[in-house]
Amino acid sequence: MPLAAPMNPPRILDGKALAATVLEASRAEAAALHARGITPGLAVVLVGEDPASQVYVGSKARTCAELGFYSRKIELPASTTQDELLDVVRGLNADPAIHGILVQSPPPKHIDEAAIIRAIDPRKDVDGFHPENVAKLVLEDPSGFVPCTPAGCIMLLDSAGIATAGAEAVIIGRSMIVGKPLALLLMSKHSNATVTVAHSRSRDLPAICRRADILIAAVGRPEMVRADWIKPGAVVIDVGINRVADPTKKSGYRLTGDVAYQEVITPVPGGVGPMTIAMLMRNTLQAARQLGE
Amino acid sequence: MPLAAPMNPPRILDGKALAATVLEASRAEAAALHARGITPGLAVVLVGEDPASQVYVGSKARTCAELGFYSRKIELPASTTQDELLDVVRGLNADPAIHGILVQSPPPKHIDEAAIIRAIDPRKDVDGFHPENVAKLVLEDPSGFVPCTPAGCIMLLDSAGIATAGAEAVIIGRSMIVGKPLALLLMSKHSNATVTVAHSRSRDLPAICRRADILIAAVGRPEMVRADWIKPGAVVIDVGINRVADPTKKSGYRLTGDVAYQEVITPVPGGVGPMTIAMLMRNTLQAARQLGE
Repeated sequence: MPLAAPMNPPRILDGKALAATVLEASRAEAAALHARGITPGLAVVLVGEDPASQVYVGSKARTCAELGFYSRKIELPASTTQDELLDVVRGLNADPAIHGILVQSPPPKHIDEAAIIRAIDPRKDVDGFHPENVAKLVLEDPSGFVPCTPAGCIMLLDSAGIATAGAEAVIIGRSMIVGKPLALLLMSKHSNATVTVAHSRSRDLPAICRRADILIAAVGRPEMVRADWIKPGAVVIDVGINRVADPTKKSGYRLTGDVAYQEVITPVPGGVGPMTIAMLMRNTLQAARQLGE
Repeated sequence: MPLAAPMNPPRILDGKALAATVLEASRAEAAALHARGITPGLAVVLVGEDPASQVYVGSKARTCAELGFYSRKIELPASTTQDELLDVVRGLNADPAIHGILVQSPPPKHIDEAAIIRAIDPRKDVDGFHPENVAKLVLEDPSGFVPCTPAGCIMLLDSAGIATAGAEAVIIGRSMIVGKPLALLLMSKHSNATVTVAHSRSRDLPAICRRADILIAAVGRPEMVRADWIKPGAVVIDVGINRVADPTKKSGYRLTGDVAYQEVITPVPGGVGPMTIAMLMRNTLQAARQLGE
């Protein structure tokens, strides 16, 4: 039930718990598709040996296995050419066992990532980065794929009953992957928020943040947003996930968000991160449904 | 030269004068293209007999003639079917004399306008409404066509030397034609403004407007924005063009904008309107250049 205003003290929007619920529902939906002879299939392409990318790709494959999806991990050497990668994408476009295609970002520098994304069949573009899906987001056409992290943020707000209509939402960051799509979603007829997009060139960022009923930090700077930037009772979603040196940890680092606020409403880790992968599974199901029809 | 802050009292951003300058430059560029054997060509398709649409279409054809462009006006009866209209568009896509295609909005109700727009060759989509051009706007890819009214607003700001970087821009209205594309342009690396999009569901619109250094009204409600909604020294662009009954006029109506402020910086009529048609001519030139290469 939507609340008239966010409550004080801030509740935790538990991304881990919500992601688990979404994954459970996805497992059930996959089973229903199996009964119709369809196994949702996700192909993840990794070019080069970036360790962080390998972790992400591994966790996507593991989640697929848990949900009864078919998954294919395609690991290519860093020396792969643009044409070779395009051939791999075209092969996946034509493969009826594959409903979703994801090329792990960032590829090596000699790869033209935009051209690779344009080569993905938009009906299999579960990342939502293909121009056709970007346009559908602007046009509020629900047949498109919404990028996973912004979609996860909207679901966190919706499922917690946060009233977005007429609320002041401030997004810090104007990236193609989070800031811009999230702004479009929050200003859409689904959410009806008054949306401000702030960024590195904004003047007096603390004052802009303090007017937010809903504050979303997606800027990638550890603990940049301070406690006194946050209006009491505001809902804060921390999309940032930054590595900060920490000699007390065995790994030598800890993960921290963009927000230093102690009662931040989505914890890092365990907030938006798990939602992103859950949304990827949902998008793959949507692709399997739409292509299976 | 960019100013540190907008000056007070507000200057008039004279859309009529700037549009005349743009048209003069376009005439010269068309002459240069003639010398290379290219005549920029614009096709305007009008379905049905809407009187306002007939006025717009006539003025586009007249401007083409003044600039040495080839123009073709295609007037179809209101009974034209979707398939017949698609055939007309496909014919124009294939026609080498035509570089820009515009289907005057709104078409009759039985026409699926989105499908018609998708059928236009994106390289000839001088309105900038094709999904491929919408995506290029989001992705900040300058090879796309920018919708004419938002492009005109940006040029008005730029040519007056208004410093947009870090400024608070507030846009009232979230339409596909003005509000959303203008928001994307103002938050882009070209303009670097802090952008707020407000709309019918926003709470306390006057307070939101009062924080604007640059206020853009694109809502279509006559004189909704009042003088006391405007921060002293703010730059105000009035995109609205509304007919209001006025018995003192021979026509029985007068044209008014969305802003009641007496010193509004773009007058209605004579502000954004002339810029829109000038931007259409620029887009047609861009299409002729890109297709002629």
